[in-house]
Amino acid sequence: MTRFVQSEMHPHRWGSPDAATALPEAARGLIEMAFGIDERPATPAAAPPVGALASDLLDALRSVVGPEHVLVDDETRRLRTRGKSTPDLLRARSGDLSDAPDAVCRPATHEEVAAVLALAVEHHLAVVPFGGGTSVTGGLVARREGYAGLVSLDLVRMKRLLAVDHVSMTATLEPGLRGPEAESLLAEEGLTLGHYPQSFEYATIGGFAATRSSGQSSAGYGRFDAMVVGLRVATPRGELALGSSPANAAGPDLRQVVLGSEGAFGVITAVTVRVRPLPVEKVYEAWSWPSFEAGADAMRALAQGLLLPTVLRLSDEHETAINLARPDEIGGDVDGGVDGDAAGGCVMITGYEGEPAANAAKRAAVTAVLDALGGTCLGETPGQAWAHGRFNAPYLRDSLLDVGVLVETMETATFWSNRDRLYTAVKQALETELGEGTLVLCHISHVYETGCSLYFTVATKEAADPLRQWLAAKAAASDAMMAVGATITHHHAVGSDHRPWLTQEIGELGGSILRAIKADLDPTGILNPGVLIP
Amino acid sequence: MTRFVQSEMHPHRWGSPDAATALPEAARGLIEMAFGIDERPATPAAAPPVGALASDLLDALRSVVGPEHVLVDDETRRLRTRGKSTPDLLRARSGDLSDAPDAVCRPATHEEVAAVLALAVEHHLAVVPFGGGTSVTGGLVARREGYAGLVSLDLVRMKRLLAVDHVSMTATLEPGLRGPEAESLLAEEGLTLGHYPQSFEYATIGGFAATRSSGQSSAGYGRFDAMVVGLRVATPRGELALGSSPANAAGPDLRQVVLGSEGAFGVITAVTVRVRPLPVEKVYEAWSWPSFEAGADAMRALAQGLLLPTVLRLSDEHETAINLARPDEIGGDVDGGVDGDAAGGCVMITGYEGEPAANAAKRAAVTAVLDALGGTCLGETPGQAWAHGRFNAPYLRDSLLDVGVLVETMETATFWSNRDRLYTAVKQALETELGEGTLVLCHISHVYETGCSLYFTVATKEAADPLRQWLAAKAAASDAMMAVGATITHHHAVGSDHRPWLTQEIGELGGSILRAIKADLDPTGILNPGVLIP
Repeated sequence: MTRFVQSEMHPHRWGSPDAATALPEAARGLIEMAFGIDERPATPAAAPPVGALASDLLDALRSVVGPEHVLVDDETRRLRTRGKSTPDLLRARSGDLSDAPDAVCRPATHEEVAAVLALAVEHHLAVVPFGGGTSVTGGLVARREGYAGLVSLDLVRMKRLLAVDHVSMTATLEPGLRGPEAESLLAEEGLTLGHYPQSFEYATIGGFAATRSSGQSSAGYGRFDAMVVGLRVATPRGELALGSSPANAAGPDLRQVVLGSEGAFGVITAVTVRVRPLPVEKVYEAWSWPSFEAGADAMRALAQGLLLPTVLRLSDEHETAINLARPDEIGGDVDGGVDGDAAGGCVMITGYEGEPAANAAKRAAVTAVLDALGGTCLGETPGQAWAHGRFNAPYLRDSLLDVGVLVETMETATFWSNRDRLYTAVKQALETELGEGTLVLCHISHVYETGCSLYFTVATKEAADPLRQWLAAKAAASDAMMAVGATITHHHAVGSDHRPWLTQEIGELGGSILRAIKADLDPTGILNPGVLIP
Repeated sequence: MTRFVQSEMHPHRWGSPDAATALPEAARGLIEMAFGIDERPATPAAAPPVGALASDLLDALRSVVGPEHVLVDDETRRLRTRGKSTPDLLRARSGDLSDAPDAVCRPATHEEVAAVLALAVEHHLAVVPFGGGTSVTGGLVARREGYAGLVSLDLVRMKRLLAVDHVSMTATLEPGLRGPEAESLLAEEGLTLGHYPQSFEYATIGGFAATRSSGQSSAGYGRFDAMVVGLRVATPRGELALGSSPANAAGPDLRQVVLGSEGAFGVITAVTVRVRPLPVEKVYEAWSWPSFEAGADAMRALAQGLLLPTVLRLSDEHETAINLARPDEIGGDVDGGVDGDAAGGCVMITGYEGEPAANAAKRAAVTAVLDALGGTCLGETPGQAWAHGRFNAPYLRDSLLDVGVLVETMETATFWSNRDRLYTAVKQALETELGEGTLVLCHISHVYETGCSLYFTVATKEAADPLRQWLAAKAAASDAMMAVGATITHHHAVGSDHRPWLTQEIGELGGSILRAIKADLDPTGILNPGVLIP
């Protein structure tokens, strides 16, 4: 777990530079067979364009946060350029740093954030809040035209655990805490948040809230928005503090307006979350299902029976076949050497986190349901292997881009009765747009009583212009989601990439509401311009 | 269950006129001892003021909904005057019908609602959406100054079950369905909503959504806002349709903006809710705790252990002593004749609704926890008695007003660590303001991992001006809630009564957001003016 250090992410790869890995041998063979190997080394720019911020503006920022916390050097600005979507990576790999901020500003407190926003309003600077930099939807690519400059508001210094309430089981966290940092501070108190998105190693508390993140343990711990009971936000018009009670009837729940606001309404400076006891035991196992349909029906039975393990995910036949549930083992033996015939089926992961006795009881009850529905238990070995490699998939994407294979993910959600229609529509859209030899894999990793998410991984041979190639495929898949009435994003957020589809999802009037709130809280539009608001 | 017919509520009492009951004998004796009997018969007005709506406006409304659905007769207008708070009842009893609408308009479809709103915008009519008329927070007392008239938009004709999805376990309901009507339609499909607020017999689906209602089975079924997955709303600026998926990251959750909007943003014309299988068995039992604290700690243990029965409520020592948990039996034997010493303690009700095997398993697990924490099981008899009388308390209030005893309820919520402070603060505020001989009772009926609701019932001898007396007490209690950082309302909504405190709870900027949304959706301010928006 050496990656859990305070390293920066690589400027055009996922994760810290020293974590970059070549393709595992088995995977390389598979890739060569499927797509051919076409080495495409990155050709990054030497430096971003010169920062355009006038020196009096820099001085003003320095007076707020201290001179050492306003950074204009090339490397820092490069590392705060865009997020980690495949388009972001393709642009960075090809030397395009045109979205680099003019300066990186690092406030330490709510008051400093507020003061930076006041300066930004005064001088009409665009401000991009920056947490982990893990956005995969263009959430860090603000429009800069018409602004006096663009400042990356880096929350890296806001990493305190502000309060713990062991009676109410809540904790108040600062936004800059990365997943492992938050868990580590909570663990000292015997607590956990239980939020493990794939971006866990780098993504931050503020980002989880701002994007309505959902983690791999969402079946047990819920989505991040369901964990939040309080928020403090710095806006250009002042402070917004919410959270009088777990739930109430005091009008619309404004916490749910801040959650998912993606830095466009304000900067989240503290988040009060519901916490749980640190689990004593974590057990993962795998199951095999004859079809995606059979596995999905079993997930639905568990969700509607209110009998959910902590982790519940199901790979379709294609994802199961290439074993993407275990990126370390791509092309390897799907059942991890355990006896049991998973060939041709679909692998499900079930995980139990908590007290051993409670885990055992839940596991027995879940096992009874899954057995009765025709599942075959593959035991703990493949489950633990999944848990071991659970944060690795994004690293693999870079290794594939290195050899000319375009890989990206996208996700959506719908009600159970619409699941198969959504699955087919998105898959067909991607295959049609990207052509023969494209691999479309899917898994379900978040379930509700009324529906589930669908998470697609796409791999295809890079065309001459891979960015254009991908944007066309993404548009086709997004159109397909809208055509069947699903959401444009279950947990990746809107950013700038999904923005063109948001009005279709929430309607003209829904877009109008967002613009009205934006105009109220950020009247001069300095916050993350071009992101979220349709 | 004969009250579950389509009767109108009494103009100045809770429930249908034929359900009005005199005080039970045991209660009358108790009341006489505590407060004295001071008969105060109601002196209702003969008729409301003459409706002020110009005849061309009435004709325009008639052309939209049909002539028979625009009603201007005295009795209909009287029955659409205000809701059922004690101030509402006191005003009606004393002959004040000044808030009567000029006309009652009954649209049958979303399109008719939209057309009525268009007319209202054109002629600047104030529109008050009317569902069950059960508001206890002044939600039906719109400001009429400056408007061409005031129309009660009665949703009584919108009572269809529009769709059922047995796979996704959702149902789409029209807003005018009362609780029993919705349950009856769902029961034909083998389904239940499981939403049983005390107003269940009269309150409607649209009202549940518009006020963020929470029912007596919230421990098992959740709050109403947690059941909603989709909404259709008619606003002066057009239609708002939300609900692409159970949950998503497509920006702020705008469903949570409509929920709790109290008719100020638009008229909810359809609600899609998560449903559950109709329970096969309902079992209720009672427990006794040595103190409110001990019982509350046990509730917290269940909530934080994720081991909640379907119903979970706890009366404090005072409520237990007068047995208000069972309004039919006020003054009667607290444990229903069952052996077991509840004297001096606090009664808790636990209820299990579902399959017998699942109920038994849950009950065994809950029993183990409650036993270990020092609870004493009183068996099913008092539990079933609670269930039998669960909707009766509001009827009692009228009988007490008849004999000069002012009774009202108020509720709030906070985090567990603040529970005792909130309890003490509200109790002291009420006792100080209302003086000696005032009875303040409390129960907890909604729990969360991080906190709970507190529901107070206050009884005091009526002063010469009971309205003024109560408003002062209500203000003192509301100030106390704000002083300890709790919410002004857990499930009764804001209405016009709580509006003066809303800004303290959500801040100036929170109020500003509500005004911005209001201005966007209802730019001329025709919808429920004076309600909710600070």
